[in-house]
Amino acid sequence: MADISTCSALTRSSVVEAHDIVKPHVHRTPVLTNRTLTELASTPRTESDLKGTRWEGRTPARPVLRLWFKCENMQRIGAFKVRGAFHAVEKLKKEPGWLEGGGKEKGVVTHSSALALAASESGIKAHIVMPDISPALKVNATRGYGANVIFSGSTSVEREAVADRVIAETGARLVPPYDHPDIMLGQGTLGLELQQQVADMMAAESGSAGGISGLERAPTTRSSKGDGGLDAIIAPCGGGGMLSGVALSCEGTGIRVYGAEPSFQGADDAKRGYESGSRIEAVSTLTVADGLRTPVGVHPWGVIYERRLVSGFYSVTEDEIKAAMRLVLERFKLVVEPSGCVPLAVALFDEDFRAMVEKEAGPEGWDLGLVFSGGNVGAETVGKLFA
Amino acid sequence: MADISTCSALTRSSVVEAHDIVKPHVHRTPVLTNRTLTELASTPRTESDLKGTRWEGRTPARPVLRLWFKCENMQRIGAFKVRGAFHAVEKLKKEPGWLEGGGKEKGVVTHSSALALAASESGIKAHIVMPDISPALKVNATRGYGANVIFSGSTSVEREAVADRVIAETGARLVPPYDHPDIMLGQGTLGLELQQQVADMMAAESGSAGGISGLERAPTTRSSKGDGGLDAIIAPCGGGGMLSGVALSCEGTGIRVYGAEPSFQGADDAKRGYESGSRIEAVSTLTVADGLRTPVGVHPWGVIYERRLVSGFYSVTEDEIKAAMRLVLERFKLVVEPSGCVPLAVALFDEDFRAMVEKEAGPEGWDLGLVFSGGNVGAETVGKLFA
Repeated sequence: MADISTCSALTRSSVVEAHDIVKPHVHRTPVLTNRTLTELASTPRTESDLKGTRWEGRTPARPVLRLWFKCENMQRIGAFKVRGAFHAVEKLKKEPGWLEGGGKEKGVVTHSSALALAASESGIKAHIVMPDISPALKVNATRGYGANVIFSGSTSVEREAVADRVIAETGARLVPPYDHPDIMLGQGTLGLELQQQVADMMAAESGSAGGISGLERAPTTRSSKGDGGLDAIIAPCGGGGMLSGVALSCEGTGIRVYGAEPSFQGADDAKRGYESGSRIEAVSTLTVADGLRTPVGVHPWGVIYERRLVSGFYSVTEDEIKAAMRLVLERFKLVVEPSGCVPLAVALFDEDFRAMVEKEAGPEGWDLGLVFSGGNVGAETVGKLFA
Repeated sequence: MADISTCSALTRSSVVEAHDIVKPHVHRTPVLTNRTLTELASTPRTESDLKGTRWEGRTPARPVLRLWFKCENMQRIGAFKVRGAFHAVEKLKKEPGWLEGGGKEKGVVTHSSALALAASESGIKAHIVMPDISPALKVNATRGYGANVIFSGSTSVEREAVADRVIAETGARLVPPYDHPDIMLGQGTLGLELQQQVADMMAAESGSAGGISGLERAPTTRSSKGDGGLDAIIAPCGGGGMLSGVALSCEGTGIRVYGAEPSFQGADDAKRGYESGSRIEAVSTLTVADGLRTPVGVHPWGVIYERRLVSGFYSVTEDEIKAAMRLVLERFKLVVEPSGCVPLAVALFDEDFRAMVEKEAGPEGWDLGLVFSGGNVGAETVGKLFA
């Protein structure tokens, strides 16, 4: 992993450079729209909808929302993480002395299976430390990329101890899964694509009578802002690598970026930290959104909070996440893992968010980008979730 | 329903006219590609893959296939059927005397829930005869379009008796679900879009360094036929309305069209009829591909067999259908009902089809369009299928 001091600056133009680097290696995943979900988001919930929920007694908000979904569930290996992994590997290959010092053979070590793929395609040995409770599907896929899978306990302390041992034994280079500028810039490339794809789709729509590329545009009132693209993006927040990268991709564009988290067992660490002014360093939660169980890292925090490139956080309950996932499966016909449904749960069910949009956007409403961050959930798990 | 004698001729140009009619009412659904599935289709199966299957002992075929998926699972109401329904309704509205004779109030009667939506958007009363074993999700969705749902037994004789009674009582017009030229021409519009979208995607790909719109192109050997678009399409065949419409949409283009069926309990009626030279008029099967349990209708048969616009049929087992559906869920991240996975099952698992492609296409291979016809399968059903 490149030394922090020699990394690219955390700016939008570094995200653009990262995009040039990762483009040949990752899919430009589709941006899709869905009329049913856009109508649902723009329909005020009823008092009876809110009954028995944390919103009971609230006057339902009346936001106007047009939803655009960035389908990273269709990304290689089924999640956005390959973007950061390829970016980190390509930067490592250019680090003075690394290749010459036998870097490829010494290899890389990490906790993210995405790196197994990125390393494999460059002929670099990869040691992937995975919790011994990892799903077999994931372990097999990782081994399928030729990686050396090493099991550890589930806590970050246990994983780091195993990684340290691997480094001592092999001389492999550590690639952190999210807390590094190269990872953040790589993940942020999805934000650039989302902005461009929405602008292209809006242009195609205004130039043609029929549907836009992909699905027909939802028939809610259009904004008069002149097809200026997105107003805001909601991205899920676990370690914060992707959220901070997306925030960097929007720097100076006027597009607001929000973070979405589960609230279960304190998984909303970024929200609590953002509101209290101090990063929360440890989280212990078994939220169904299993990709979002980690606390925000130091480097993401600098972008998210210290530079205020994220405008705020919203958190949703387990029931709200599962309800969103069911709608995605049954109405959108897409498989998105629970973590990836958290932003949609905010847009549909978080009355705080919805009231904020009503107030800020008025009757024109917002074009809102939502990141479907991944789709790694097996058929059996889908069955269990909705049994 | 327009009188057969006054219907448009069954030609490609009538499909083009139908497209102009239905375009404002239906989604132009996305065409997506998937690298994993394309690689799988172009990888010969091993002898151990074939062991214990109906292909045991065969030398695995070595076809080269590049797959393009028309995602009608993302169509309105989750299936291609709205295309035929809107076309039939719009033609009915133009039938001399129908509106003046109180047609809207007398209404329409059918067995397809798609008509409920199409009728509703024109303010036409709809009576929908549904088997009393229909899933609640489907019944509720149909009622949600303001339709009058009338239950019947599950056999076609029972359903027709109920429809006849409704006609006698209300003066409603019968709209057959598939055995009518207006329905066939409407369904065929998906074939036109698929041809155009693939050509556009190929053009975009050859003009840019990165991925094509949607997903990046699979990296198998490209054909040297100069981005001429698709070589062939496989569509599922139940009543044959959609397959015959797609065949009409390809008339004169050089694109071959194949039908795909389940083989379970004789559900492969079209294949058997096509090969024996005589339409099979009754089928009784409980194949998991529940949209394909009906025999081919008279009008579709004329296009499919008598005019030979379909080049052949292939049929797959229940296990092959479920294996294809699992791949679609877990690797493509899409929800496609079992019926919609039958064409992919043919491309991946039918050694007769694969040997034919190897022989006909040679090392250049084929660009093959597959119709994901619908996605109406609830989360619970997905769970049960893969428990």
